Amino acid sequence: MIILGIDPGVATVGWGVVDWRGNKFYGSDYGAIITPAHTPLCDRIEQIFDETSRLVDYYHVETAAMEKLFFNTNSKTAIDVAQARGVLLLALTKKRIHCSEFTPLQVKQAVTGYGRAEKEQVEAMVKMLLNLEKIPKPDDAADALAMAICCAHCIR
Amino acid sequence: MIILGIDPGVATVGWGVVDWRGNKFYGSDYGAIITPAHTPLCDRIEQIFDETSRLVDYYHVETAAMEKLFFNTNSKTAIDVAQARGVLLLALTKKRIHCSEFTPLQVKQAVTGYGRAEKEQVEAMVKMLLNLEKIPKPDDAADALAMAICCAHCIR
Repeated sequence: MIILGIDPGVATVGWGVVDWRGNKFYGSDYGAIITPAHTPLCDRIEQIFDETSRLVDYYHVETAAMEKLFFNTNSKTAIDVAQARGVLLLALTKKRIHCSEFTPLQVKQAVTGYGRAEKEQVEAMVKMLLNLEKIPKPDDAADALAMAICCAHCIR
Repeated sequence: MIILGIDPGVATVGWGVVDWRGNKFYGSDYGAIITPAHTPLCDRIEQIFDETSRLVDYYHVETAAMEKLFFNTNSKTAIDVAQARGVLLLALTKKRIHCSEFTPLQVKQAVTGYGRAEKEQVEAMVKMLLNLEKIPKPDDAADALAMAICCAHCIR
């Protein structure tokens, strides 16, 4: 099962792909969609939509997972992240890819076994579980891989 | 100039189209995209994207306007409205339609001349300015027409 994990955002969308078969991870890839600052939101969300659609095709993605959004602040950033998330969800839906939702607590629990794990612990576990040579960068990509791992554990 | 005004939402997206030429309104149309409750968000935003794309084609829309979002509450609804708004913005962008943003204060000011006008005053002015036989329903459609009128006044 090819799983795409996504860490939504406007400036940076982290993504991570894992190949999960028979309770084992076989290979993974990761990266980030970076949209140029000082560019209208409409252009940035279009780039996010197009690149996500291409990722799904390129990796033959079979299912996806994204963080559930919670806002504590009435900020422009929070609204824009939600707008970008809507577009990410549409890109998946247009490709008939189901998208699961997990909270940060669920992801930490699944990856480290502990819901209040530190960021560094999560990243170290992602590196170990996927047999990577180094901690994935940017952080958004590491978060996206953690999300994909969490999704795999739920399928198991 | 054919202007599409949009009142974003998940359950109901209000829309209003006005034909604005030489400082006059020539005809208008309005309605709402209604998405079924108890349906996954991904299906609802896809319906919103598809119907908005069709509206743009059908009415030969040349420019659009949507409300600027401000959230005071940390609610699921607010997040979902923002996700739907992102998808609406994408539908316009994919059709190369520019989308202006106005605050409720700007809309009320443009339609009634008074930024703190009551809902009923705005609806009555929409009816008068567009020479309609009755107050447009649902309210979301009336709001969308008010948005389109505000956009027209800005072009003037």
